[in-house]
Amino acid sequence: MKPSIALSERTTVHRASERGHHDRETVHAIVDAAWLCHVAFTDRDAETGEPYPVSLPTACWRMGDQVFIHGSNGSRMMKRLASGAPVCLSVTLLDGMVLARSAFSHSMNYRSVVVFGQFEVVPETDKPAVLDAFMDHIAPGRRMEARPGDVHELKATTVLALSLAEASAKIRAWGPHDKEGDESLPVWAGVLPLREQRLAPVPDARTAEQGRPLPEYLSAWLQAQPAAPAMNKD
Amino acid sequence: MKPSIALSERTTVHRASERGHHDRETVHAIVDAAWLCHVAFTDRDAETGEPYPVSLPTACWRMGDQVFIHGSNGSRMMKRLASGAPVCLSVTLLDGMVLARSAFSHSMNYRSVVVFGQFEVVPETDKPAVLDAFMDHIAPGRRMEARPGDVHELKATTVLALSLAEASAKIRAWGPHDKEGDESLPVWAGVLPLREQRLAPVPDARTAEQGRPLPEYLSAWLQAQPAAPAMNKD
Repeated sequence: MKPSIALSERTTVHRASERGHHDRETVHAIVDAAWLCHVAFTDRDAETGEPYPVSLPTACWRMGDQVFIHGSNGSRMMKRLASGAPVCLSVTLLDGMVLARSAFSHSMNYRSVVVFGQFEVVPETDKPAVLDAFMDHIAPGRRMEARPGDVHELKATTVLALSLAEASAKIRAWGPHDKEGDESLPVWAGVLPLREQRLAPVPDARTAEQGRPLPEYLSAWLQAQPAAPAMNKD
Repeated sequence: MKPSIALSERTTVHRASERGHHDRETVHAIVDAAWLCHVAFTDRDAETGEPYPVSLPTACWRMGDQVFIHGSNGSRMMKRLASGAPVCLSVTLLDGMVLARSAFSHSMNYRSVVVFGQFEVVPETDKPAVLDAFMDHIAPGRRMEARPGDVHELKATTVLALSLAEASAKIRAWGPHDKEGDESLPVWAGVLPLREQRLAPVPDARTAEQGRPLPEYLSAWLQAQPAAPAMNKD
């Protein structure tokens, strides 16, 4: 029995419940495999005051049982989220198209996490460590080379933390499930797999001009190529 | 001058406005390059009635100036969206990590679209053509082979259309922009590119058993491999 995240009504997977996961290990692995999330919150029309939903992509990273985002203090989204507005954060990794023998049974393979809650503002004193973790997520080793943020840059940046306490994961990682009677149709069925591919680092003009070699920590970029999507037995 | 989508307050790109695009061609190309979107809407707590935002991933496709999604009639999300609730639909394609000489100037390359509006229910008579377009989006040619949806399957499926009238795109597709004074730092700077890679089709057990060859229309899957991300001049 893996350690589980407590279920709430809105994190209980109702549809295709065989895809639902609530253990921390699964939720963490999906968040860690992602570079970005979508954050949904409610905004209000400047003139009418009418509420409307907004969903924006932003970079994310995890430490412990929290997921973090960051942005400029001046950003409307950051201000709204820092105020403790209710949010829904989603991370989705697409692993392939699932071609069944009937149009209706087609599907997709994917790994996704949905989190409900409210962001908390990361205090000034904790920012350096949390932003270091972000850099380690993107390119481990890089923060030893790049110029670190100065006081003004840190002050201009809002860092927000969202607890993974109310999170759930969904995974589909198998071949087509045809309806009874369709299995014998003379149709090619299977999966068209997709993965996020890392391509060779491209130096900018000045780096190329200087003939600056690729730092050792960046050769890990290509070595850490994600494997082809997992495919469980049909 | 490309044909533009009318600007609204909420689709005007305020931050990093050099990344903003409002022409139809750009918006359409990004939606067409995506398999899925995130749809944000407001739901209400079953007990307290308190509103909260929800953002869920779902497959999407485009015809003309509308983007479509579909799902089971029984799905809570489909019911809510079919009622005309205000939504925000986002499509995000990540093209790479941008490594600048200072931690603060790091960024990401991406193409994204955000659409505001309300879904409309696609009438029963239009469903077959709209769902055909979905199949053509996933695997052109496949609908000539797979069993088409029957009356019951079509009836059980809700198909929803969202106008792209209130849409905007953001694109970042260039190298790092360092702050003045940072350009001379002895730091490797450039882009770690990412792309969605198509892997070879994997037949399911029965298809493999039968020795059924890959249909001609599916060999296009690998041939249509997306190019490496575009990189404009620094």
